[in-house]
Amino acid sequence: MMRYISDNTQSIIGSKIREMFNMALKYEDAVSFTIGEPDFTASKEVALAGCKAIMEGKSKYSENAGLIQLRKAISEYLYEEIHMEYDAASEITVTTGAMCGIYQALKVILNPGDEVIVIEPCWTNYVSQITMCGGKAVSVVALEENNFNPEINKIREAISFKTKAIIINSPSNPTGTVLSEATLLEISKIAIEKDLLIISDEVYKHILFDGTKFTSISSLPGMKERVLVVDSFSKTFAMTGWRVGYVAGPSQIISNITKLQENITACVAMPSQYAAIEALKGSRLHLNMMIDSYKKRRDYLASCLEEMPKIKYNKTTGTFYAFVSIRETGMSSEEFAKDLLNKKHVVVVPGTAFGDGGEGYIRISFATSMEEISKGMKLLKEYLKEM
Amino acid sequence: MMRYISDNTQSIIGSKIREMFNMALKYEDAVSFTIGEPDFTASKEVALAGCKAIMEGKSKYSENAGLIQLRKAISEYLYEEIHMEYDAASEITVTTGAMCGIYQALKVILNPGDEVIVIEPCWTNYVSQITMCGGKAVSVVALEENNFNPEINKIREAISFKTKAIIINSPSNPTGTVLSEATLLEISKIAIEKDLLIISDEVYKHILFDGTKFTSISSLPGMKERVLVVDSFSKTFAMTGWRVGYVAGPSQIISNITKLQENITACVAMPSQYAAIEALKGSRLHLNMMIDSYKKRRDYLASCLEEMPKIKYNKTTGTFYAFVSIRETGMSSEEFAKDLLNKKHVVVVPGTAFGDGGEGYIRISFATSMEEISKGMKLLKEYLKEM
Repeated sequence: MMRYISDNTQSIIGSKIREMFNMALKYEDAVSFTIGEPDFTASKEVALAGCKAIMEGKSKYSENAGLIQLRKAISEYLYEEIHMEYDAASEITVTTGAMCGIYQALKVILNPGDEVIVIEPCWTNYVSQITMCGGKAVSVVALEENNFNPEINKIREAISFKTKAIIINSPSNPTGTVLSEATLLEISKIAIEKDLLIISDEVYKHILFDGTKFTSISSLPGMKERVLVVDSFSKTFAMTGWRVGYVAGPSQIISNITKLQENITACVAMPSQYAAIEALKGSRLHLNMMIDSYKKRRDYLASCLEEMPKIKYNKTTGTFYAFVSIRETGMSSEEFAKDLLNKKHVVVVPGTAFGDGGEGYIRISFATSMEEISKGMKLLKEYLKEM
Repeated sequence: MMRYISDNTQSIIGSKIREMFNMALKYEDAVSFTIGEPDFTASKEVALAGCKAIMEGKSKYSENAGLIQLRKAISEYLYEEIHMEYDAASEITVTTGAMCGIYQALKVILNPGDEVIVIEPCWTNYVSQITMCGGKAVSVVALEENNFNPEINKIREAISFKTKAIIINSPSNPTGTVLSEATLLEISKIAIEKDLLIISDEVYKHILFDGTKFTSISSLPGMKERVLVVDSFSKTFAMTGWRVGYVAGPSQIISNITKLQENITACVAMPSQYAAIEALKGSRLHLNMMIDSYKKRRDYLASCLEEMPKIKYNKTTGTFYAFVSIRETGMSSEEFAKDLLNKKHVVVVPGTAFGDGGEGYIRISFATSMEEISKGMKLLKEYLKEM
């Protein structure tokens, strides 16, 4: 049957996170730190809003761009959160998670062979999405010594006449880095100079610790016209399985995303759209509770990791991921992750699941219970001591 | 900003159905027959199943291919409905409506320049989807004199060394045609001879009248290995806005669709997946009630149309669309539709919204209330008499 599969599709590689996940299935007692989703669910109010829509029969097609009430709520939210004005009717489109927002944005802008710069370590679905859209991902590796902020010279060197966009993700999956204002400013200057678009994946922007501040690159001078702000309800409101996100940006790109969406998903599921309205308009208590929990878990995780030999962890400032250096073990990330799984049934993601730039690290998600963290860290400590 | 939009995206044209829909917005009293969705909602049981999942917090990511319980239910359903055995784990993937199923199937199989044959008049999103995936749609026009079954010689002539697949849609939107077994058999023979895939869009297969029988081309000899059965919960279970469908077919293609889905939508919204399980496992009372209603409406519509001059309607055998010839008026489909809208505020879809092969026809959806049909048909009659 391989003869039926296109070359492009054959070139797409499944995620290494999933590979670890599948490998772990053979151990019933596995303690997993792989999951990129909150262990919380949506707030009761959000859940009820979804049910209300269902019971009232509000479950037909919406406009391809999403319910105008939802787009208005997003517009108000963006103004409140990042102080940017986006017109609900023309500058916002509701997508099946940030995932489909980024995919469709890339599909809109990329001609065959066009290049998109990604900052490694990064969520490698970007690379798959760029490839699926006929483009070429060009990696710039960000180093821990710069707190995983990319060096601007390296970005400059990576730009060619085929470069169309840069994808940034702050706070970053997997490093947890919140890009500095200085870095954002430099990226914005290059974007203007080279006439590039920026796809700003901001799905973790609410999960911040220790007073860390988030700045959207869209808010920097001259950037609104060249930034696509991509956001999701998945992480902020613990709504992963509802599949709802959005893209905000220049109207011509947004209208083209919507045009393609007519042929890809038609629209986002309606119960999810109504639930999303409640998420934006309702109280922030649930979100604050979750952030408090993530912080407690991070602190506990850090206190455990501190006591362990051969590893190094700089406390996460955003997201629910710990990106932990295992360089001192002398093992590769993948060797480490597989050996830890086989010997102790603890599942972590090798840093190379986020590109070669992640070599020497493992990612530990702390979107899991204190009990699991406690159990897993005990096993990790044993593993390291027995090394 | 046009400089940012890819050539491929620029070449995609928005649907003419939507164009009519938008034109109609200026008339508050418009009577619309454009809608391609049931005016019913999902059954109460289905709605409650969605709510139950939500309230139980079953709203995280599922596997990319969908919940295994849902795939098992689909497998049982396919066996019951079309007498085909599909393995739940490897031969079925749950997609964001049939829409995303078809898009992803095309994305999996098409290399740049590959050709896909479509039978006009057809749902023109196929053409957009093929184009978006870098392929080329090649049209074969089916004529009313053959009851809109395509002539096999025309299909044969349309095949080139670049042809990869044929999309069939029985019962057909917009013609309502259920392809004859003879036609399906001939198409299957060509597919085997030329080593082509068949994408069989079966979303209307339950909406049949007058004892008409549906045969899935997948059930013909030697075809299971080269047919992708695409189905949706939208029409059968009145679940349009829930956005859930599936593709069943050879495991290698299915696994590749799932692989791409990881980067497009991740998975179908979870409340929708749980509701879909109930739709398949629950009673067929709601479906039967809807089919009865469609039949009554069709009969009433036919009795109205019979009395009108200059038009000709062969009773629909499947779907909720009437495809009505307006050739005798001497007007083009688009002139007719726009003139009818402007003079009588009645909205129908010009046949050319389904390709050039639809010239001389209008599509009237009877997925609307008897009152609307009555009101609209009175106005259409006036319009034709004043001509």
